[in-house]
This record gives sequence, C-alpha cells and structure tokens, in this order.
Amino acid sequence: MRIVVLGGDGFCGWPTSLRLASAGHKVLIIDNLSRRLIDHQLKTNSLTKIYSINKRIKEANKYFKKIEFKKIDIALEFKKLKNAIKEFNPHSVVHFAEQRSAPYSMIDDSTRRYTVNNNIQATHNVCSSLVEINKNIHLVHLGTMGVYGYSKDFGVIPEGYLDISIPGGRNKAKILYPTNPGSIYHMTKSLDQLIFQFYNKNWQLKVTDLHQGIVWGTETKETKKSKFLMNRFDYDGIYGTVLNRFIVQSANNLNLSVYGVGGQKRAFIHINDTAECIKLAIENNTFDNSRVRIFNQVSEVRSVKELALIISKKYGSKINFIKNPRKEMKKNDLEVLNEGLKSLGFNPILLSDKLINEINLLAEITKNNFNKNIVLNSPKW
Amino acid sequence: MRIVVLGGDGFCGWPTSLRLASAGHKVLIIDNLSRRLIDHQLKTNSLTKIYSINKRIKEANKYFKKIEFKKIDIALEFKKLKNAIKEFNPHSVVHFAEQRSAPYSMIDDSTRRYTVNNNIQATHNVCSSLVEINKNIHLVHLGTMGVYGYSKDFGVIPEGYLDISIPGGRNKAKILYPTNPGSIYHMTKSLDQLIFQFYNKNWQLKVTDLHQGIVWGTETKETKKSKFLMNRFDYDGIYGTVLNRFIVQSANNLNLSVYGVGGQKRAFIHINDTAECIKLAIENNTFDNSRVRIFNQVSEVRSVKELALIISKKYGSKINFIKNPRKEMKKNDLEVLNEGLKSLGFNPILLSDKLINEINLLAEITKNNFNKNIVLNSPKW
Repeated sequence: MRIVVLGGDGFCGWPTSLRLASAGHKVLIIDNLSRRLIDHQLKTNSLTKIYSINKRIKEANKYFKKIEFKKIDIALEFKKLKNAIKEFNPHSVVHFAEQRSAPYSMIDDSTRRYTVNNNIQATHNVCSSLVEINKNIHLVHLGTMGVYGYSKDFGVIPEGYLDISIPGGRNKAKILYPTNPGSIYHMTKSLDQLIFQFYNKNWQLKVTDLHQGIVWGTETKETKKSKFLMNRFDYDGIYGTVLNRFIVQSANNLNLSVYGVGGQKRAFIHINDTAECIKLAIENNTFDNSRVRIFNQVSEVRSVKELALIISKKYGSKINFIKNPRKEMKKNDLEVLNEGLKSLGFNPILLSDKLINEINLLAEITKNNFNKNIVLNSPKW
Repeated sequence: MRIVVLGGDGFCGWPTSLRLASAGHKVLIIDNLSRRLIDHQLKTNSLTKIYSINKRIKEANKYFKKIEFKKIDIALEFKKLKNAIKEFNPHSVVHFAEQRSAPYSMIDDSTRRYTVNNNIQATHNVCSSLVEINKNIHLVHLGTMGVYGYSKDFGVIPEGYLDISIPGGRNKAKILYPTNPGSIYHMTKSLDQLIFQFYNKNWQLKVTDLHQGIVWGTETKETKKSKFLMNRFDYDGIYGTVLNRFIVQSANNLNLSVYGVGGQKRAFIHINDTAECIKLAIENNTFDNSRVRIFNQVSEVRSVKELALIISKKYGSKINFIKNPRKEMKKNDLEVLNEGLKSLGFNPILLSDKLINEINLLAEITKNNFNKNIVLNSPKW
C-alpha cells in the first residue's frame, strides 16, 4: 500500500514509518520537525543520538527502500499538505502530527495555545484535504486513552462508544464515550474526535481512531538495524513517559520519583506494539464506515507505584513519593477493553525482565547524555 | 458592571451591546469587523444600511454614553486581546466573535478551515487569557441549539446536560449532551463546549454557554433610536435566517422557498430576546461553578413549513418546496426546555402579527437594496 505518515519523525511516528516500510509499504513521511525544535526550546534532549531526518531516510532506504520525506507544517501549510497527499495518492494517511505532551501543554499560556492551534488545525486540515482529494483514503489517527478520563463511572472502558439508556428506560443509544480530558493536550484529542465524527457523518470519511495508552520502550526491530535509525529516548518530566523515566533514574543512581502515592492506574503499550497496531489498523481497512472505528491501543494496565516497585526491586533503587504536579485522582481503578485490535491479530507485548533489561542497557550506555536537571521539570497544573 | 463584548459589531453582538449600555453597564466592544468583509467576499448585503463602527459608537454614546470600541482579531491577536481585557478589567466577557453561518462554513475547503481556525482559536484565546488575567471574570458565550442535533433520541432537549444510566442500571450520571452537529459551524460550537468544560474543570473558569435558537427580527428598542444604530438585516441564503428570508421574499413578490417539505422543527428567538437573555445571564452571575452553566436561549418551537404558511396566509405569497441544500432530516419532532433563563426573569417574545408587520415594513422600505440573486445562494452539503 501507499501510506502517508504525518509526524513521521517523532517518537511513535518514526518507528511506525519503518515498520510500514519494512512490511513492504511505500511510505511518505511528512513532518515539520517540531519535536526537534521543542528540545531546543526546553533545553531537553533524547538520551539516544537521533540523526537528521535526511540521514535517517537515506539509511532506512538501504534496508527498506521505500521511504520519502517532505518537510511540511500541516497546521500552517494547507496547500502543500493537500498537494503532497494528492500527488502521492495514498491508500492510508496516518496522523501523528500533534503536540503530544500533556505537561508541555500545561506549561503556560503560549504552550496551551500552541497545542490547541497546532493540533486542531492539523487534524482539521487533514480531514478537509481528504474530502477534497478522495474521501475513501483511510485516515488512521493516534488518539489517547486520556480522552476517557480515569474514573470507573461507566465501568470497563469500552472502545470509543458507550451504551447508555435514559432513566425511565424509554431510550437506549450508543454514544461517543463522554470525554473527560486531564490536560490541554488530552482536550485536543477530545476535540479531534468530534471533527472525525462530523467528517464521517457528512462526507463518510473513513477514520480509525486509536486510543493509545502510555508508551514505554524506545527500540523496535527496525530501529535496531542501524544506529542511524535509532529512535528518541525521552526521560525528562515533560516528554519522558513514566516507565522509561524510572529506568533512566535507576540507571543514573537517582531515586524513582512517583507522583503522589502512585495509585494512578494507567494503560501501557510497548513502542513495538504501537508500530504493530498502526500497521494492523491500516492493513485491515474493511469495516463498517457508518461511524468512526475506535480501538483502544493498549497492552496491559498497571499502577505507577507497581511500575516503581518493579524497577526498585530489580535494581535496588529507592522510591521518592513527591507532590503530584498534575491534577488527577490520587488513585483510580481501571479496566480497558482491547478486543478490536486483538481481533485483527494484535498479540500484546507485556512487561518483561528482558525488555526492561534492554531499556536499562540503553540507559546505561547513554549515560553521558543524561542531564539530571531535566528529570523533574514538569510544570504544575 | 464593566462588560467586554467580543464580536460586538455583528447581528447579535451589536444590539446586545446597546442593550447592555442602555441598562447602565460600561461596554467595550472588540471586533475585527469580519462580518462586513464577508459581505464583500460573498457579494451580499444587509437590507438596512449599517453605518461604520465609529459612527455607530459615536451615535450610541449620545444615548448611552458608555460604549468603547477596539479593533482586534481575537483569533490572531492574542496579546492585544489580553491587554485590552486586562486594562478594561471587566466583570463579564460576552463572546460572539465566531463565524456564525452554517451555510458559509459548508461552501468549500477554505470556508471550512476559516470557520474552524477562527472559531476555535478565538474561543481558546479568550479562555486562555481569562485564566491569566482573572478566572473569576464571567465568560458568557453564544452557543447554538445545533449542538444537540434534532433527533428525539433522548426525549425533550434538556439544558446542556443529559441524565443517563448504564444498561444493567449500575451507574447513573449527568453528562454533557451527546453532540450531533449538522455543519462545520455547529461542530465548532461543539468543540467550544469541550474547551469550556476543561477550563472550568482545571481552572474553575466561570462560564455560561447559551444555546440559542434561530434568530428572527432585526430591530430592538435600542437600535430603533437612530438610523445610525440600525442593525443588520440579512436575507441571503447564507447569512439570512429563515423567517426573515420569508418576509423579505414576500415583500419582494417572490415565492417563499422552503427547503424540502419544511418538516424541520427548530427553536426560534426574537433578536430583542437575544439581547435580553445575554443581559439576564450577565446580571445573574451567582451560580454553582462546579460545571459550565448551560441554558437554552429559545422562545418557541416551530416548523419551517408552519412559518411559511403564516407568511403565505398573511401576504398571499406562494410557497416553493425546493430541494434541500442541507443534509438534515426531512422532518423531526422537537421539544426544548428553557426553564433556566425563565428562572432569571426571561419572558419570551412570541411570533406575533405586530412583529411580523414591523419586519415586513422594514423589508418594504429597503426594497431598493434587495438583490434577488442572493436569496438562494446556499451551498449544498
């Protein structure tokens, strides 16, 4: 298939692009390289050295020979976006091109506005261009579990839609799950859902929205093939994700910083599975298009404290329970369905000693790049 | 009180600004004058002559002496917006500053994008500036009945929130009414709701969202005081609203153009009541701020055919049932609660011979400005 990957230079986008190319698909990456720029702004860095996009593409084509790149800001350069998609004539467009950090979106007024303006214009520009070009192009979007919120008000988290009835029992309906985002970033993904809903209703745009859990890990089969293909490895308080941060703290002889009591249960997924799930969603593109297809892209549910204990036990690191900079429940219960992707063949990678060791090894050999000043740089909200 | 009116030069914004000033409030109008520009783009016009904003303000201050004006594009000029609000130090900000025509938002790719980018950035900029300046400033937003959609799936339309239960009866909850917009414009107001929801949850921003029905009429007590204060009178297929258009068609010896069979039941409100409801919402600003306060700003429910029959009977005009350019149900039932504003003292103006005569008279005396080419200029969607 021919696949456009928007945001294909990022943490999820890059390994996914490689996975798709490795599976024999022809890939066009479109990215404005904003994630690299944000590193400069925040004075943060990836532990791993990440090569320039041109070097990455050149190297990837030695192994897969099917990746192209175009630098376009899809939020601001609509015509370029539209022409690039039109010319490439894809079967699918994967949309990762959003500012993806909750803490970043909560730093201040300017990061709030950047996140909203960038993410909403990006998503809407994609939808608007697809109905102009060909509404049968399958749009695959990376959503987030965060759109659901983390209450158990409605029991087990379904895949996008909630069955409800109206008291008195007169009416039953299936509705988009009532959204309850916890940050401006998560809010933008809630807005995205309504954009997809309307474009599907009015133009029958074919959309799969994948509500992903928190990603851990950094390498995939494909990124391991060459140092030039290496993925990002974020460990700061703004872009780093919780398990990866614990491993890096441990490798650098720091205490593990648990927000609050660590009672937050969240859904997790390994970066390898991110790439795999997107591939499955793209390759299985025959579905009932009367509404947006929504899957939960998650492998397992763990509490933050549980993860800290695993790392602490394994490497002997201490745990610091620190004041939670986020506004969230101290503890919550969580159960999540992920039958949709499983029905397409998804076989989740679960937390394992082997994979944790692998990340730990990477953290050890990249110690020279570690800057302890950025480990706890999350803004408060 | 000190009140900022964003979009105070428009069809609803201008008479509301005058009403507020007339009630003794100090008003700062902020507007980018975009509605006047769109008239040029679409080659449409108001039947009534509308004077420049400077002339309007100067005249208004002869009667009310409490209105100022600043030309700011609130979607694009964030700093100017923030400084203007900060300096004026208002009790309330009323937000009308959105592209408000459903047909306009469905013309083509560029009007879709303009509507989304303008409306979302505008709304988010307002929220983001208020939490920086003073989160106790009461934000009053003009929403739309269109966010609910027009099904009777959930019975009588409540005021913003729907009581639901989960089959099996385990859980009950009050949720934001599941949105079902019928155009890009209505979709933006659905997105606005989620922005308000999050800003209220995270920063306790104090918001009233008023889901307004379709407006009819053009003059209010205040706009009648001088020709220089006259409000817009739109009659084209893009910005004109249905009852006003029927009256203008009739006055110009055209058949009344009913979309489809005219079975669409909608909620209506007279422009005088628009101004009055906003005033009531502002003056009654003590309420439970644990969530966004949502009222339905409507006076009565009528079907499109019913309105056409009233005008046809009164003036002898014929009715043309034409192909509906919109995607909407041929007919629908509709019941809407409006207890919230009534509890604050709202006493709805209902359709009456006297008021229809008044609009008809205005249509008669502005016949020279009538251009029949724009009466049926709605895009199809």
